[in-house]
Amino acid sequence: MVRPGPTGAPRGRPRSERVRVAVLDAAADLLVEGGMSAATIEGIAARAGVSKATIYKWWPTRGHVALDSFFTRTRDTIAVDPDASLSDSLTVQLQALCALFRDTASGRLMRELAAFAQNDPDVRDALEEHWLRPRRAVAMRLVTEAAERGELRADIDVEAVVDQLFAPVYHRLLFGHAPLREGLAAALVGQLLTGLRPRN
Amino acid sequence: MVRPGPTGAPRGRPRSERVRVAVLDAAADLLVEGGMSAATIEGIAARAGVSKATIYKWWPTRGHVALDSFFTRTRDTIAVDPDASLSDSLTVQLQALCALFRDTASGRLMRELAAFAQNDPDVRDALEEHWLRPRRAVAMRLVTEAAERGELRADIDVEAVVDQLFAPVYHRLLFGHAPLREGLAAALVGQLLTGLRPRN
Repeated sequence: MVRPGPTGAPRGRPRSERVRVAVLDAAADLLVEGGMSAATIEGIAARAGVSKATIYKWWPTRGHVALDSFFTRTRDTIAVDPDASLSDSLTVQLQALCALFRDTASGRLMRELAAFAQNDPDVRDALEEHWLRPRRAVAMRLVTEAAERGELRADIDVEAVVDQLFAPVYHRLLFGHAPLREGLAAALVGQLLTGLRPRN
Repeated sequence: MVRPGPTGAPRGRPRSERVRVAVLDAAADLLVEGGMSAATIEGIAARAGVSKATIYKWWPTRGHVALDSFFTRTRDTIAVDPDASLSDSLTVQLQALCALFRDTASGRLMRELAAFAQNDPDVRDALEEHWLRPRRAVAMRLVTEAAERGELRADIDVEAVVDQLFAPVYHRLLFGHAPLREGLAAALVGQLLTGLRPRN
């Protein structure tokens, strides 16, 4: 929504939105540069040129602003092509997540956030609310719509399906037992959609 | 192997084995009671009644002795019934892991170990060597043997299969987005073996 400016004329983004974007940009920059220890409310406020009170108007904790900024910065990795098949859509999303964790500073950052989340309930809540839930929602919608079209069985557990696609990526990132290799995304999608048993 | 005692007569376990068991017991007790901060080499040595040097003869770091003790204490959760079907064997293992994380102190402990592992390469190596690798080896053997019998397709990625079964349990434990509910194990195994697409 474009709100009119003080003169009554519409302008681009309202000030509140410009401030919100500045805060998210500052938080994302600090996170990528120095991790959670750099992304303090003081640091974010100084970098964005706003007061701490302004930040707390929109986000309850620094975990929430940090995770919101991280999600916003990487939102394009969950873009969906409406004409793509279910298999292609899921594979593209998984490939993007693997590349994000493998090839950018986001991998190290997610490892740090996951570690923080084990000891800090605020970070854990923020991680779920601003990262995991919106990302999972996209995949769950793709799977649910495919089931409604009859492409998938009606009795599947959609939450478990999304775990079987995406949890392996987080598991390999956090535990390091196997690489986020090219081809992993396609293997995860293909094995789950088709099943492991021989087709006769 | 039972080595003869000093008199030449065989006795139960050799002293080295009794010491090893005492160290693992002490480490597991300390871990469960107080987490990684309690499982120091000093604390383990004192509780087991051995010297620190004795511990370092078998384990390179406290992470290794801690994880070895944790794995040894929970080893029965990966016991395999040789007469069970692949589906049943995998389901039993997944159910046992869910129950371990959901109903015992091991859930909190694994969360702490996973957090430590993000900042401490020794803990990460120990977690992989003494926990993840031996547990995954059991599941990989079950899957590989089933593929050799023709029960599973020959072209599956066995590492990815094991991730698609077990990573969801770790993901839910660490991120808390969904519960380790009854029935999860069966859903994970059933969905992956059979696939999500309708069977005609």
